[in-house]
Amino acid sequence: MIAVFAGLRAHLARVEAIMGEALASPEPRVAAMIADIGPFHGKMLRPALVLLVAETLSGVHENHRRLGAALELIHSATLVHDDLIDDADTRRGQATAHTRFGNTTAVLLGDYLYTHAFHLVATMGDAACMARLTATTNVVCRGELHQQMAARDTGLTEGEYEAIIYAKTAALTELAGELGAIDGTPAERAAAAAYGRACGMAFQIVDDCLDFSGDAQKVGKTLATDVERGRLTLPLIRLLRNAPAAERPALAAKLTSATTPDEVAAVRKLVTASGCLQESLLRAREFVAEAHKQLLVLPAGPGRKKLEELADFIVVRDF
Amino acid sequence: MIAVFAGLRAHLARVEAIMGEALASPEPRVAAMIADIGPFHGKMLRPALVLLVAETLSGVHENHRRLGAALELIHSATLVHDDLIDDADTRRGQATAHTRFGNTTAVLLGDYLYTHAFHLVATMGDAACMARLTATTNVVCRGELHQQMAARDTGLTEGEYEAIIYAKTAALTELAGELGAIDGTPAERAAAAAYGRACGMAFQIVDDCLDFSGDAQKVGKTLATDVERGRLTLPLIRLLRNAPAAERPALAAKLTSATTPDEVAAVRKLVTASGCLQESLLRAREFVAEAHKQLLVLPAGPGRKKLEELADFIVVRDF
Repeated sequence: MIAVFAGLRAHLARVEAIMGEALASPEPRVAAMIADIGPFHGKMLRPALVLLVAETLSGVHENHRRLGAALELIHSATLVHDDLIDDADTRRGQATAHTRFGNTTAVLLGDYLYTHAFHLVATMGDAACMARLTATTNVVCRGELHQQMAARDTGLTEGEYEAIIYAKTAALTELAGELGAIDGTPAERAAAAAYGRACGMAFQIVDDCLDFSGDAQKVGKTLATDVERGRLTLPLIRLLRNAPAAERPALAAKLTSATTPDEVAAVRKLVTASGCLQESLLRAREFVAEAHKQLLVLPAGPGRKKLEELADFIVVRDF
Repeated sequence: MIAVFAGLRAHLARVEAIMGEALASPEPRVAAMIADIGPFHGKMLRPALVLLVAETLSGVHENHRRLGAALELIHSATLVHDDLIDDADTRRGQATAHTRFGNTTAVLLGDYLYTHAFHLVATMGDAACMARLTATTNVVCRGELHQQMAARDTGLTEGEYEAIIYAKTAALTELAGELGAIDGTPAERAAAAAYGRACGMAFQIVDDCLDFSGDAQKVGKTLATDVERGRLTLPLIRLLRNAPAAERPALAAKLTSATTPDEVAAVRKLVTASGCLQESLLRAREFVAEAHKQLLVLPAGPGRKKLEELADFIVVRDF
């Protein structure tokens, strides 16, 4: 667990319990499968964001924990479907759902996670909050489709790359910040949302770098899937930009058409030998700086200090 | 189009327009894919149910059309994922999404349809209605998972089969009846829901029979997928029940383990040569009778007459 999460342990345990209750099924065969797969969550970054922002402002209420649980369930749904699509074997060091239960079950399980997340928020009775959640999940799904439709396009611009990572990742962390500030002033809500957004952008850029440079054991998931899927992420876009114009077309073709293990390894080698990972991390650091700037709107104190640490952690993590 | 839908043409056109607006994307690559795949819907049975019930009671309002559109989008999401899972090539005579755009896009497109359906209802601002929709979609996803976890189980009972088809099909038609009666009395709402539920049960049993006896051209979709997936549907359960006890274990193994085209064809032949399809249709007729009984609670008139025709149509359809 990340150090900054230590103070949240009791809250996060409750978030996990809410997720478990939300997924409970009266049907024994389904309940057995859900129990078998264990706790459904990623790094709990999204609930932590909700909770830390709430701590900084109004204090944490049960609604914050429920909203955090719903965001993590939606994130988990995307992970189950992403791992299936990427044919990734491991996630957080565990065998992924499709590896354990087959592709069919993984498709249906992802759907099950989505609808139960929505139901968790729908039963809170706050129509405006529900509309924000569904609007954001629309953006997430649009981002996933956008990434897929743009795969193997050698002309993908950095602007379009950032639009994709905003949609698929930062829209949900933006909402996490916003929902943490649900009892705050409009200015605090806007700043918390912008903080969440900047953190999400930085997080995804680092994730895209780790896909090349990470240690699969440490990161706990299958790596190099982006290259295999022909996704032009920031390191590749920068690598192309830095290449002499005459070499670009051939290089672009090479970067987006790798499918065999040898071809993928060759692209990884090219990337790690160049300075494009460091360059990409600089862009991530700009987003972290933006996150810090937004925090100035929130009241100073131990809560805000933790939010600062969380933002800093994003760019130094190697897992 | 089914005859009883003729009077709904204008309403259904509006439902289709609402679905199109709900799915519109500001992202050109995603918008192009959505436009390319054409109108997303099945037989429009669920919106028709909402509209016909509303016509019988309060008259049709824009909210009924929006709710009908949302139900059809949810149904479409399940179709996109089901067709992928069943590797079915055609649906309503058209190539299915995964056949045209690949498995990855089909997984993501199904998710996109789900979340946009929820958003459509979330923006109506009726928290109770949203909670009903999400609760029902939970049941639908549970039913899909239940069916999957029960596949190739030779001991599946008729009771468990009916629990599965209620969850995966009749829960949503039940909600369609209920939402059509959203402005009615509690008794009317309950009767309309029970009518929708009975129609859904009958519809799914007929669908399960058509998987054996249907003409793929007429039905407009890939057939015999249930046998290939090892799903014990009502015709097979009845076939087993009617077999001499001593032969049952070997027969059960044969029915649930067919995977090659020859094995699947052998099972189809066994089923169509026996009386189990006719027996299954009798069970569907019992549900149609139940649907008629529930209609007595609604005011008599041309609207109710159409609901009677719709229920009768379910068991005579061959597509």
